[in-house]
Amino acid sequence: MHADRAYEELIRRMREETLLASCEALLEWDEETYMPPGGVENRSEQLALIAGLLHDRGSDPRLGELLAAVEGSDLLADPLSPAAVNVRELRREYDREVRLPRKLVEQVARTTALAQKAWARARADSDFTAFAPWLQKIVELKRAEAECVGYADEPYDALLEDHEPGMTTRNLSRLFNALRKELVGLSERIIESGRGPRRWPRRTFPINRQRSFGETMATAVGFDPARGRFDLGVHPCCTGIGPGDCRIILRFDPADLAQGLLTILHEVGHAFYEQGLDPAHYGTPMGEAASVGMDEAQARLWENRVGRSRGFWAHFFPQARERFPQALRGVSVEEFYFAINQVRPTLIRVNADEVTYNLHTLVRFELERALLAEDLKPADLPEAWNAAYHRYLGIEPKNDREGCLQDGHWADGLIGYFPTYTLGDVFGAQLFTQAEKELGELDRHFERGDFRELTKWLGRKVYQQGARHPSARLIEVITGSPPDHRPLVRMLKAKYSALYDL
Amino acid sequence: MHADRAYEELIRRMREETLLASCEALLEWDEETYMPPGGVENRSEQLALIAGLLHDRGSDPRLGELLAAVEGSDLLADPLSPAAVNVRELRREYDREVRLPRKLVEQVARTTALAQKAWARARADSDFTAFAPWLQKIVELKRAEAECVGYADEPYDALLEDHEPGMTTRNLSRLFNALRKELVGLSERIIESGRGPRRWPRRTFPINRQRSFGETMATAVGFDPARGRFDLGVHPCCTGIGPGDCRIILRFDPADLAQGLLTILHEVGHAFYEQGLDPAHYGTPMGEAASVGMDEAQARLWENRVGRSRGFWAHFFPQARERFPQALRGVSVEEFYFAINQVRPTLIRVNADEVTYNLHTLVRFELERALLAEDLKPADLPEAWNAAYHRYLGIEPKNDREGCLQDGHWADGLIGYFPTYTLGDVFGAQLFTQAEKELGELDRHFERGDFRELTKWLGRKVYQQGARHPSARLIEVITGSPPDHRPLVRMLKAKYSALYDL
Repeated sequence: MHADRAYEELIRRMREETLLASCEALLEWDEETYMPPGGVENRSEQLALIAGLLHDRGSDPRLGELLAAVEGSDLLADPLSPAAVNVRELRREYDREVRLPRKLVEQVARTTALAQKAWARARADSDFTAFAPWLQKIVELKRAEAECVGYADEPYDALLEDHEPGMTTRNLSRLFNALRKELVGLSERIIESGRGPRRWPRRTFPINRQRSFGETMATAVGFDPARGRFDLGVHPCCTGIGPGDCRIILRFDPADLAQGLLTILHEVGHAFYEQGLDPAHYGTPMGEAASVGMDEAQARLWENRVGRSRGFWAHFFPQARERFPQALRGVSVEEFYFAINQVRPTLIRVNADEVTYNLHTLVRFELERALLAEDLKPADLPEAWNAAYHRYLGIEPKNDREGCLQDGHWADGLIGYFPTYTLGDVFGAQLFTQAEKELGELDRHFERGDFRELTKWLGRKVYQQGARHPSARLIEVITGSPPDHRPLVRMLKAKYSALYDL
Repeated sequence: MHADRAYEELIRRMREETLLASCEALLEWDEETYMPPGGVENRSEQLALIAGLLHDRGSDPRLGELLAAVEGSDLLADPLSPAAVNVRELRREYDREVRLPRKLVEQVARTTALAQKAWARARADSDFTAFAPWLQKIVELKRAEAECVGYADEPYDALLEDHEPGMTTRNLSRLFNALRKELVGLSERIIESGRGPRRWPRRTFPINRQRSFGETMATAVGFDPARGRFDLGVHPCCTGIGPGDCRIILRFDPADLAQGLLTILHEVGHAFYEQGLDPAHYGTPMGEAASVGMDEAQARLWENRVGRSRGFWAHFFPQARERFPQALRGVSVEEFYFAINQVRPTLIRVNADEVTYNLHTLVRFELERALLAEDLKPADLPEAWNAAYHRYLGIEPKNDREGCLQDGHWADGLIGYFPTYTLGDVFGAQLFTQAEKELGELDRHFERGDFRELTKWLGRKVYQQGARHPSARLIEVITGSPPDHRPLVRMLKAKYSALYDL
């Protein structure tokens, strides 16, 4: 078979797979937004079918033949050419898929679709025992997956690889240990300072108005509403359905303006990546995010480096005050800025400040690693959870709802995913530091409502690169340094030392 | 191969096909409700892919082998058993699919997804010339489809068969000619009577309140909101995503309460069929509607026989007056009843009264038949359309927007579909006449808010039968008579003679 022809067929097949996966994305989005309760059984069957079809296609021996016909050909002479990148990534995915039996893939899809509903009920009732059998089953399925795929050191490696290609549990663990020490220290110093923002009376921010302000803000920073949309749901997220169709699910709390707006910025960060990928490469790795961690980096960067910055609010606070004249009466921009940057140990990850946030994800990393290694029994999770919170955050949940049932990731089969949030924060800080080196102090840009220089820079450096480099290498190409927790720590220390007068 | 084993595999394959088709249904529902404008290209690719996959599966030679192994076996001894019905229908579908090249199927899916947007733009601009090339292409594709599938008398037969198995253009034409004569005569006598409802001042019915009243009404007549939902869109329709998930798209006009409510009842009629199918047979013909016409029969029955009845409004009008105290001030139930049953020739099908409605569909039947037979060039459609409206309704559209661009069916590739509306009205009247024979005068039931006897009867006689009989035969089994326009004509004559004092 001629290499050019084989490559053409590979591309055609990859595009079809992506299209099929984009149907799956819509099914999942719909499940989170509009599906009636009665639809859950059928939805789990639909998702299982598509997962099975994707698996059949992803492990089709024909792919192996085509890959063999292309590999070693002149077409791939330049290892950073689109063809070489696409073939490299497809080889990785193919080698993984052929090791997974279709039955297991379908079982995971079906089980997790049902487990999500069971988790939602268990969470509402704050009853871990109702969810425990599902967790047991999911951990077993994911362990089976790891065993099929294979790993060097521990089963967790195999799952991590699915979200963060090239990353090992050992390296991650080293990076995270260093980071944890710093974060625990910093948050303790902040608490000990006894300082904090002035508390203003509890006031109400009507959800409709939060939503409309949030959407205006998203559009002002560059989100294209003709190529995406916003909906309400229980779990905020960003789903790319395809080029020109990127959807954000939002959640608002009438008592908490900052939370809703920072969530929008987080999801908009994801959306920028999605909307900024090269459409000419759609359906192939060159038109996809480098990794989940790199995707989270965009989200965390927009949420924390932009959305919690002084410059951002210098620009947007006057508008916020116009929209919420009652609730923000007598609040200065400086007070608002301090309030949205208040640091205190809390129980719920998604509401955490940026200093303690990563301690939440590191708890999950530790526990899911133990679950998978059979060092922790699913039934014993609440106890281990509470102990870990006590250890790193000095507080303990009163019940499972604000403890180990708070996140739906495990119900969704996402084990090996939580680390990508922290990795995202680490990458995001590295990227931001580099962007400031090249563009000057970005707070000045934000102050005058200019976000375009930053998005253009990210577009050039990150979005348009697709999966040309694995994430750790991409960070090195852009910043000159491998993954490194120090830029994040440096930024946090500088910001919070000033704010809390440490 | 053993017949039992072959049948089992057939069922498994049918169920998978249905699941895949239900993913397609969600893609289409989403396109009508929430998809952002930028998503249209990708959506057409998604739909083309699924259409192609469905075609591959539906024409897989393995199906031919399995069918051959089952046909003639004892398993099918009783021709009305679920196995025999499923095999009969699958054979019909398989024989159709194998005759269609995949390329054509994908082309139809892709072209119609794009043509719908072109139609919407052309309609907004009232510019048929912008849509003409799309119509040309679609007619060509559908003619190609008819040629591949084959037909006895004319290409239209092949398309009609897809919606109304067992029905021929010739038989339909005879039925429709008889009906048209009666309807033209009746509507002329009504107009000549010079009578009509009192006109009350134009008032506003806020859309949100219409929607909430409509949903309450739908639930009161038996729609299960836990197994379905309502959304707003441009084209009202009912989409079954699967058991427990049946979605209705609504449209409201603030100046016209009746229109919005009758639309809900129409779609609820579809939904009852969908929600009333036997879930044990889901994914096989025994768990599907007998035909599109039988499905329309449910919709037209609920819209016209129930929603335009005196008893229905005797029950609901007091509630309506509570919800719209301003707009319905000084309006009696009798006046309201006359107003929603006013007969007058109008230009827009979906707003037509029940006497002239079928003249609208018969125009489309005549024209699409001519288009397909090459007796009418797509470019000449507006002229032919206007002439037909003049002939049967005595009025003519001033522009294409209120003329041949008003419906999106042809853009959607639906040729051979319009007759099912009228067939539905004919079937619906036959069913209703029979239901009254067995249950007594239904207006009395409606008056006291009892719709359960009717839905139970329909459930037993129609919904739970699935595709056991072709539609014309099912009508005969239930009513003792083949398809017959006279019950509809009788009902309309009785109702409108009284109302207009003819």
